[in-house]
Amino acid sequence: MTSETEVEVLAPLASTLPAVDREAAIPRGFRAGGMACGIKASGRPDLALIAAVDGPIPAAAIFTLNTLAAAPVRRSRANLAATDPSGAGRFGWASAIVSTSGAANAATGAAGEEDQAQIGTLVAGALEIHSSHVLHLSTGVIGTRLPLDRVASGVASLVPALADDGEGFGAAANALRTTDSTRKVATVAIELPGPDGAPVTVRVSGMAKGVGMIHPRMATMLSVLLTDAAAGPEQLSGILGRAGVTTWNQLSIDGDTSTNDTVFLLASGASGAAIAEPGSESEAALEAAVTAVARDLARQQAADGEGAGALLTCQVSGAADDAEARAAARVVISSSLVKAAAHGRDPNWGRIADAVGNARLPDAAVLEAAGVDAAAAAERAGKPARLDPDRLRIAIAGHLVFDGRAGGPVAFDRAAARAAMGGAEILIRLDLGLGDGTGEAFGCDLTEEYVRENAEYTT
Amino acid sequence: MTSETEVEVLAPLASTLPAVDREAAIPRGFRAGGMACGIKASGRPDLALIAAVDGPIPAAAIFTLNTLAAAPVRRSRANLAATDPSGAGRFGWASAIVSTSGAANAATGAAGEEDQAQIGTLVAGALEIHSSHVLHLSTGVIGTRLPLDRVASGVASLVPALADDGEGFGAAANALRTTDSTRKVATVAIELPGPDGAPVTVRVSGMAKGVGMIHPRMATMLSVLLTDAAAGPEQLSGILGRAGVTTWNQLSIDGDTSTNDTVFLLASGASGAAIAEPGSESEAALEAAVTAVARDLARQQAADGEGAGALLTCQVSGAADDAEARAAARVVISSSLVKAAAHGRDPNWGRIADAVGNARLPDAAVLEAAGVDAAAAAERAGKPARLDPDRLRIAIAGHLVFDGRAGGPVAFDRAAARAAMGGAEILIRLDLGLGDGTGEAFGCDLTEEYVRENAEYTT
Repeated sequence: MTSETEVEVLAPLASTLPAVDREAAIPRGFRAGGMACGIKASGRPDLALIAAVDGPIPAAAIFTLNTLAAAPVRRSRANLAATDPSGAGRFGWASAIVSTSGAANAATGAAGEEDQAQIGTLVAGALEIHSSHVLHLSTGVIGTRLPLDRVASGVASLVPALADDGEGFGAAANALRTTDSTRKVATVAIELPGPDGAPVTVRVSGMAKGVGMIHPRMATMLSVLLTDAAAGPEQLSGILGRAGVTTWNQLSIDGDTSTNDTVFLLASGASGAAIAEPGSESEAALEAAVTAVARDLARQQAADGEGAGALLTCQVSGAADDAEARAAARVVISSSLVKAAAHGRDPNWGRIADAVGNARLPDAAVLEAAGVDAAAAAERAGKPARLDPDRLRIAIAGHLVFDGRAGGPVAFDRAAARAAMGGAEILIRLDLGLGDGTGEAFGCDLTEEYVRENAEYTT
Repeated sequence: MTSETEVEVLAPLASTLPAVDREAAIPRGFRAGGMACGIKASGRPDLALIAAVDGPIPAAAIFTLNTLAAAPVRRSRANLAATDPSGAGRFGWASAIVSTSGAANAATGAAGEEDQAQIGTLVAGALEIHSSHVLHLSTGVIGTRLPLDRVASGVASLVPALADDGEGFGAAANALRTTDSTRKVATVAIELPGPDGAPVTVRVSGMAKGVGMIHPRMATMLSVLLTDAAAGPEQLSGILGRAGVTTWNQLSIDGDTSTNDTVFLLASGASGAAIAEPGSESEAALEAAVTAVARDLARQQAADGEGAGALLTCQVSGAADDAEARAAARVVISSSLVKAAAHGRDPNWGRIADAVGNARLPDAAVLEAAGVDAAAAAERAGKPARLDPDRLRIAIAGHLVFDGRAGGPVAFDRAAARAAMGGAEILIRLDLGLGDGTGEAFGCDLTEEYVRENAEYTT
């Protein structure tokens, strides 16, 4: 018989987010496309373009906190700052996004900067927009230059082929991939009041790539969210920041934050639904849709992590607050030992207990994006999450394995737990028994295949 | 031809530490021994005892910052606090150390606390000392209780067999091991002024175990340092803290800080050499000896990391200060991608550049132990280490691969670099070109064997 307290820790966290479809559906007001322009030796798609039909439109971004940010990151930040200096590079106005895959254009010095600027000029010329309205993404090998001639031919042939349909969106998502084994798209449709008060459909669609060097601190490489809602740059920035805190910032594949991490959110306004002031019902609805898409993309990225055999999810309840719950969840799915045990389908709760004992609150910047005020964020950054071993409970794949209130280790059916860990997703649940804070995080198991792929990958 | 700037980044950092022997040599004033008492099913040694001939003597400790510290950690901290309340559990007086291996006695609740107290009583009875003068270590599976009856018989038969020679010290070091493939001991002998001013030989000897769940934050599991110098508890604590900052705190096997991490430093005074006030020449000499032993043990632990094929060392020069150099070195050897590339003998400098871009200063506690004052430590904790890609230089196994002052990527002989990475140690050197700060860190490659061992390890 399962007791009431067991249900608490065994059941997944309830969600209030709208349902997500994993289909390529483009919001109104955008055209998109992708192709193979020859950056990748494999001949796979490697150039994506997304254009606003009536740009420039409001845009928000989250960029990597890696000190050695790549040329596309620096170029995007500078362009946003040029179009809205108040956003300091976090928001502004944009008409297009260009993405190259196969070379990261990171650690390429002044020459790499110049290459990225040239790409902006090329795209601006082909789309007849200003180059400061072009946002940049790139992914691939660090230290390799982009082949500008191939990108130039690619842009020239891709621009006329951009389409305002799911096929175009899907092609762009395909061209975003590096070593991803799957294309990652997600979309949500919600109803919001239109210009005359009658409800109109608002869509949020996202695309993302994985699958290695992923340990976002307020970003992940690379994701683009588009919506046809109407909202200003700063409001978009707030929505994107909060959505990132509970989704991409809770994703880890391998502990390394990339030089190229970028998330963009662009709002065309073409649905006619204008988002009201911060705190309003319509803003909350759009934020829930953005969060749902971001969360689903993060889960797709985790499931497709390099060498991964399973999606590893950790959900935490009963924390002192949500920030501590997220810290606890994130440290568990980031642990190499927990990840290796997940690979062996071993219900090794001792490693989970050890990992959660190492939970620390994130940087002040992350806490602030989650709504903690600046002074409290500075005070709390890096501090241990509160834990009491005598209140901690741990469940693995629906099996209660540790209950601090009942002396600690719990006798459980090990064979049944191993079997329950055999699916595509392994859910670890912790209840800290301290408060109402909840959070979750997404990762994957650690496999021999991960090691092989990364020992053999050529610089 | 190698230019002068290349020599800077290609040559290992110079060391001012005394030479270390990897032999089991016990300082005067101690007896030690180890045996198999039956905790480990394998029948390998699992019980170690170290006793001061004329205890209690001054003792200092560094303990894990894991919030779920194990019963032996909490018992040791409480005992130190009882013998010198001013040390708040970081220093005090002790007569013996007992170490059990095979069960960590972590996450075992009140019953585990009681077990550990019982062990203290047993040891105190057998040695005819007070139980608050017993320090505790344990390592092994989390969540498993210690078999008290076997420990009791073991203690009873081990106490009469303790020896004041290298054999006893070596036997204790052997019994400290969990999955270590090698016994880890190191010793340094220095000359210091004796009671009548004439030089006497002072010895510092250490033992340690690895080899998984190792990512110390001011500790590592498990290490014991003994010396026959005479110094007070608080002075020992300062010496141990500073030595830990540049050695064990710069070690990472797999990113997980254990529940049981503990380092002890005990000083018998039996050499007759009294260490003068903090800042004195004799203190500096003892500190250099302690640091040399700690560094050598950390390197042995890294080389024997779970599944490791090579010791991975990163040395950093030209940082804004030493703390930033250590942060940069540590983040490089902690990176799964760098570790996997090391396994494949792939001179993948892009991953090193990415990793160093993620370097952040450690917790305030670590900065303070390194001599940063409290206010500056609070201000700087968690901040990014300063980096300028246009000044950064990277060398792998003696091959310059990146030079930011010369545009970035450097043409190099890839086959020769791969061959140079084929030895037992792979040295990565970074020069940040910003200041005089230096630091180093120790890890190992990431192998399929690591994954297999940890996927198959039984809870």
